[in-house]
Amino acid sequence: MKAAVCQHGDFTVQDVPRPEPGPGQLLLRVVRAGICGSDLHARQHADQLAELAGELGYDTIMRPEQQVVLGHEFLGELVAYGPKTRRRWKKGARIVALPMVRHHSGVHMVGFDVHSPGAFAEYVVVQEAFAFEVPKGVPDDVAAFTEPLAVAWHAVRRGDVGRRPAIVIGCGPIGLAVILMLKASGVKTIVASDLSPTRRELARQCGATVVVDPREQSPWTAYKQPGPVGSITEYANFGLNAIGTMRMVPLLPWGRLVRFGDTIGASPVGPVIFECVGVPGILDGILAGAPLLSRIVGVGVCMEPDTIRTVLGLNKEAEIRFVFGYDPQEFAHVLGLLASGRVDPTPLHTGTVGLSELGQAFADLGNPELHAKILVDPAQP
Amino acid sequence: MKAAVCQHGDFTVQDVPRPEPGPGQLLLRVVRAGICGSDLHARQHADQLAELAGELGYDTIMRPEQQVVLGHEFLGELVAYGPKTRRRWKKGARIVALPMVRHHSGVHMVGFDVHSPGAFAEYVVVQEAFAFEVPKGVPDDVAAFTEPLAVAWHAVRRGDVGRRPAIVIGCGPIGLAVILMLKASGVKTIVASDLSPTRRELARQCGATVVVDPREQSPWTAYKQPGPVGSITEYANFGLNAIGTMRMVPLLPWGRLVRFGDTIGASPVGPVIFECVGVPGILDGILAGAPLLSRIVGVGVCMEPDTIRTVLGLNKEAEIRFVFGYDPQEFAHVLGLLASGRVDPTPLHTGTVGLSELGQAFADLGNPELHAKILVDPAQP
Repeated sequence: MKAAVCQHGDFTVQDVPRPEPGPGQLLLRVVRAGICGSDLHARQHADQLAELAGELGYDTIMRPEQQVVLGHEFLGELVAYGPKTRRRWKKGARIVALPMVRHHSGVHMVGFDVHSPGAFAEYVVVQEAFAFEVPKGVPDDVAAFTEPLAVAWHAVRRGDVGRRPAIVIGCGPIGLAVILMLKASGVKTIVASDLSPTRRELARQCGATVVVDPREQSPWTAYKQPGPVGSITEYANFGLNAIGTMRMVPLLPWGRLVRFGDTIGASPVGPVIFECVGVPGILDGILAGAPLLSRIVGVGVCMEPDTIRTVLGLNKEAEIRFVFGYDPQEFAHVLGLLASGRVDPTPLHTGTVGLSELGQAFADLGNPELHAKILVDPAQP
Repeated sequence: MKAAVCQHGDFTVQDVPRPEPGPGQLLLRVVRAGICGSDLHARQHADQLAELAGELGYDTIMRPEQQVVLGHEFLGELVAYGPKTRRRWKKGARIVALPMVRHHSGVHMVGFDVHSPGAFAEYVVVQEAFAFEVPKGVPDDVAAFTEPLAVAWHAVRRGDVGRRPAIVIGCGPIGLAVILMLKASGVKTIVASDLSPTRRELARQCGATVVVDPREQSPWTAYKQPGPVGSITEYANFGLNAIGTMRMVPLLPWGRLVRFGDTIGASPVGPVIFECVGVPGILDGILAGAPLLSRIVGVGVCMEPDTIRTVLGLNKEAEIRFVFGYDPQEFAHVLGLLASGRVDPTPLHTGTVGLSELGQAFADLGNPELHAKILVDPAQP
């Protein structure tokens, strides 16, 4: 079969042996495969990725000198069953799957590991237990977004936004997917912040209620409702009588204003901030600028060590929830949202290329004015 | 009155004017005042503290060249009322108070600000609204611990430990206070980790159920119950039938073992880790070593920028909750715990000095084998 093989960061389309589905596995013909920010990371920072993974006990992640087929967001057509499969679907069924396969040597991440080639190829092998049939009526170009939308849905669930305002820092594909999922879960205030005018426009299309260029307007105050603003001095005036309803905030020192616009009932709480950039310095900037009692959901993958001033976090009683991946229910839930039309990722889809154009597509993704999500169609030349 | 005045990090006992209680304020004769880690910070890093505070909008924190009276953990006897006070207590009543006072210029932290001298002196002024009478039967040396115990109680509440194991990294006074409060809230597994044998012994006295020297034993595995251990491979075997009870963990990549010893019901969760050290590098070490889905409560105050690898946090879905201070209910709750005898901080109390010995006491606190908490008794010579 044809596959776009990555080695030392370069792609070449090669004829490689078609993978064989092992026990419990399926062979899919790839219909669409999305290019993910993690693919860009893997191409540029494979060694860093492999070393971090090794520190955590997973020692087969790709190395730059290896020949690897990337691609872990995909839609395929069922071609063949391996042994010991339950065979619930007909050949030709449209399938999406979690990018994880099991061989006797262990579990491998599809598209990040020489043992589990990815979907930038004509065929890909997946685990039957992690596969789902795509409901009728969901277009191919939409179903191909299941995986990144599951990442966003998991992040939104972990963020437990409730009635708080949500602030999305960085409107790349994952930031935009988070906005789609926030909207689908009924969050009323969704602030989106990005340097790129194109990305800000996409954020608006995805459901952001307030869109800011952080060079011109602070995302931390953009959503504030006009309303009473209390200073720590006013709090201190409350006295003993008010103790029953007072919270931690009045006692945070350093005189920062507490805005009642953020309160839910008697408890002042901050917004839930989705960090979807993943470069050094962003987290510290959030800790410095964010309101008291903010919850930060760390979605962006920063491959380099990052420096933060924890004392800023302490002073604001900030909370950081790091998120990664999703579970099968979340994956299935996303398919349901796509089938119902409650989530439509179409604004994110800015291009489709064939395998031979992969290198150019990776380069193009560096320009946020040009692209958000590029899908690969291996049937294209 | 006599006060230990700090300037450029040096203490001298001076005769200074006795402070006058303003509107809504009380004058206390100091009976005991504890030396806190924050006092050590303030003495050594006042400029850093002031600049960080300034960035957050509080611009009157002490500078090294200023003459400041430190001391924000204290017990006093009521001597006089200022104007506009409610006068609920008799003169001589034993009073503890939150270290925060209000002047017309704003709210100031007692013991960190030239506008609000602290309790390393014969007298201190407090806000009546933030003051509480100490219940009869609580010894002076115990009541003096109300403030640091409130810090610990707030941290334990924010940690929301439930049935998880708790791990306390660093057994200085705050780490030990956290252990006391974990025990008082019924937490079954309390692991304490410290390099110092004396501190480990104190941790045991305070209620730690497992005590480790981190050079010899990992705090992350010390509490594990023997029981089934599942690898990600086993999880992947579960297949579709198990999806109803599967959680995120099986899909965290990189093959890390998941220990069912950590599970609560069907949801694997990690321990709650209290970071009570506050020096650069500790947080990254916790992210590197801690189990999946750990919750880290950031209690230690790290005055320098700290470097972390957020990708470790992402991969483990770690959560960091920074905490600071307490609210008046928490302060009052601690007094109740002290009165009932459910919490006894006596093991932490390793010495009492007069004002003239303050400099030596600060130096002695640098040696964890010598001291945990030193109280100041201004009546001593």
